[in-house]
Amino acid sequence: MITEIPKSEFQERVRRVQQQLAARGLDALLTFGHEAEPQYVRYLSDYWPAFETASVLVPVEGEPTLIIGPESLTYARGRSKIERIRQILEYRESSEPEYPGARLDTFQSVFDEASGGKGIRKLGIAGYTVAVAPVYVALQQAMAGGQLVRADDILIEMRKVKSANELELMRRAFRIAEQAVEAVLQAIKPGMAETEVVGIAQEVIYRNGAEYEGHPMYVMSGPNTVFAIGRPSTRRLQAGEVIQLDLGARVGGYASSVGRAICLGHMPDEVRGLLQMALDAENKTIELMHAGAHAGQIARQVQEFVSARGYGHALLYGPCHGIGLMECEHPWMETSSEYLLQENYTFQVDSFLHTQAYGCRFEDGVRVTREGVEQLSSYRRELIVV
Amino acid sequence: MITEIPKSEFQERVRRVQQQLAARGLDALLTFGHEAEPQYVRYLSDYWPAFETASVLVPVEGEPTLIIGPESLTYARGRSKIERIRQILEYRESSEPEYPGARLDTFQSVFDEASGGKGIRKLGIAGYTVAVAPVYVALQQAMAGGQLVRADDILIEMRKVKSANELELMRRAFRIAEQAVEAVLQAIKPGMAETEVVGIAQEVIYRNGAEYEGHPMYVMSGPNTVFAIGRPSTRRLQAGEVIQLDLGARVGGYASSVGRAICLGHMPDEVRGLLQMALDAENKTIELMHAGAHAGQIARQVQEFVSARGYGHALLYGPCHGIGLMECEHPWMETSSEYLLQENYTFQVDSFLHTQAYGCRFEDGVRVTREGVEQLSSYRRELIVV
Repeated sequence: MITEIPKSEFQERVRRVQQQLAARGLDALLTFGHEAEPQYVRYLSDYWPAFETASVLVPVEGEPTLIIGPESLTYARGRSKIERIRQILEYRESSEPEYPGARLDTFQSVFDEASGGKGIRKLGIAGYTVAVAPVYVALQQAMAGGQLVRADDILIEMRKVKSANELELMRRAFRIAEQAVEAVLQAIKPGMAETEVVGIAQEVIYRNGAEYEGHPMYVMSGPNTVFAIGRPSTRRLQAGEVIQLDLGARVGGYASSVGRAICLGHMPDEVRGLLQMALDAENKTIELMHAGAHAGQIARQVQEFVSARGYGHALLYGPCHGIGLMECEHPWMETSSEYLLQENYTFQVDSFLHTQAYGCRFEDGVRVTREGVEQLSSYRRELIVV
Repeated sequence: MITEIPKSEFQERVRRVQQQLAARGLDALLTFGHEAEPQYVRYLSDYWPAFETASVLVPVEGEPTLIIGPESLTYARGRSKIERIRQILEYRESSEPEYPGARLDTFQSVFDEASGGKGIRKLGIAGYTVAVAPVYVALQQAMAGGQLVRADDILIEMRKVKSANELELMRRAFRIAEQAVEAVLQAIKPGMAETEVVGIAQEVIYRNGAEYEGHPMYVMSGPNTVFAIGRPSTRRLQAGEVIQLDLGARVGGYASSVGRAICLGHMPDEVRGLLQMALDAENKTIELMHAGAHAGQIARQVQEFVSARGYGHALLYGPCHGIGLMECEHPWMETSSEYLLQENYTFQVDSFLHTQAYGCRFEDGVRVTREGVEQLSSYRRELIVV
């Protein structure tokens, strides 16, 4: 049983990036990451920044560099699968400590070293959406006269198709999420605060081997269930209202989440209607998925399926999004999607419906296979009254 | 007992920002925030972005606007203390969903509305260090011909001096952190994984009313204790090695953290030397603090105190940093600091020392008073062998 991606697989990822760089005539790829969005850095180094931000620089030939801030050196040495680590001031904490006397690098010195003195004139960047302004602006200045090109797709494409090791970590992350759902269903009762339920799930995931939550866990109740994105509050749970659980774990960097909408005591009929619709939409989506299927077509079929039952107004977004290093990552499956599903793509099937008064979400992980999908989670995918 | 800052205090903050804008000849202030760094947004709106990012726009006159992405509207309506909420595509999730058919605003339309049609020509920005590139670049384009000015200091200065409500939330957050330390000291034993200990702390903080952890909690053991910044791993705890606990909670947005370096079974003599030094440095720092004291001078005195005992090489940074909405925020206290402590500044006294083999940190919150400090945490600030 592995608990992390082996170093050899990180090295293989770097080699594949280098092939893409050569094919595109790029001198290097620079990726960005921060605490809540580490994916583009972690995929190449296993390093997960905290407080400070980070980058990975992969030159078209030679050794990659992990770039961090002034305070993370010991941590990065312990965790990074990339051996060369350099420190640049702009990667510091948001509170901008000055670190008097600290000896640091610059983009210029790091680029010179990584390129063997040749310099970097055409630089691809990945993780543009999560780069922070001080780093991005310093980079623009360092590249004045050169060329910055968005090249997120190099990593996005690689990350879509999961390896055997990635799948092993994901299966474990989903199993732990199911254990959290099971424990919560045993303990939950009216009068508990939403946040208290999160605490139960947190204890379970860490006890079972998670390194962290898969995403900020959702426990939302009553009116708070209309939130497509949300955070738990100290609101007390009541019988007969919708309670939304989205509990997830992270193992070796890979995230999971299992979503269930439940009721305590009893489930009112109108609530049952919306929850059954979300559940059926999830099952319908799963039924339509297989390698070779057209993503946009699946999204349209699910939209029609929901609309035909009179719940079209309750839909907010497409029925699936990618899952891997992030609980929500490329590719989304939307009515505008134009790609075909491939074997070992992993998706979060995510049926979220809401009215003005309440909402619900059923959510499970799947791996695309030639025939259909492997379900990464399925525990009590049903209407649950505790 | 309050669990959040009242709406009236948010309105007062907005008014104070507007006074500063008028004094500086700025048309508006735009702040930025993301999931891991919400402070500049939360301070003005109480809104905490998740998955998507967010901004608050405060015009020099009139109503503020909360800016979010396509998916957060219901959540933001439930949580934001600012009523006008607008959605711009660039604030979307990092996985860049397209949301076919969604009707969204632009910086142009939001600026026009907020300024009553007058337009925004000179814009202050706050939270530059946490703005993400797509938002920042879209803003630069929208402001072409106008002027963008860093104005982080408006909010940094306001945030330094805590109000009675802020202090009430912070005292509670620190009390919960102490409860987590107490529970962990009761349960911890050799053979547990670092992450498992985090799970114990998580359950306690949520059960006692926390909305979230105060920062990614640290439980690090043996060689991992050299990390100034770190994350727990699945490494198993051993007797006789240093185990570093930094456990914190968040209440109504305000963070706490209590740091203790402990041993299981017994404490080897050379370990005791380093831990006693860190403990003494923390107490020395606290002793030097009071309203009117010079920050840089305190930092130098602590550095001299540690160096005189032969541990100067083991220091990495200044002995204090601000704490409030973030566990680490302005102002830092470094040898280069040039300000005077003021009443109701809140600091995290943070004594981190490390050798090549291991490290340790003692950390507690304090509020600066005229005479000295109010200790926000102090539970078992001593050398602990469990």
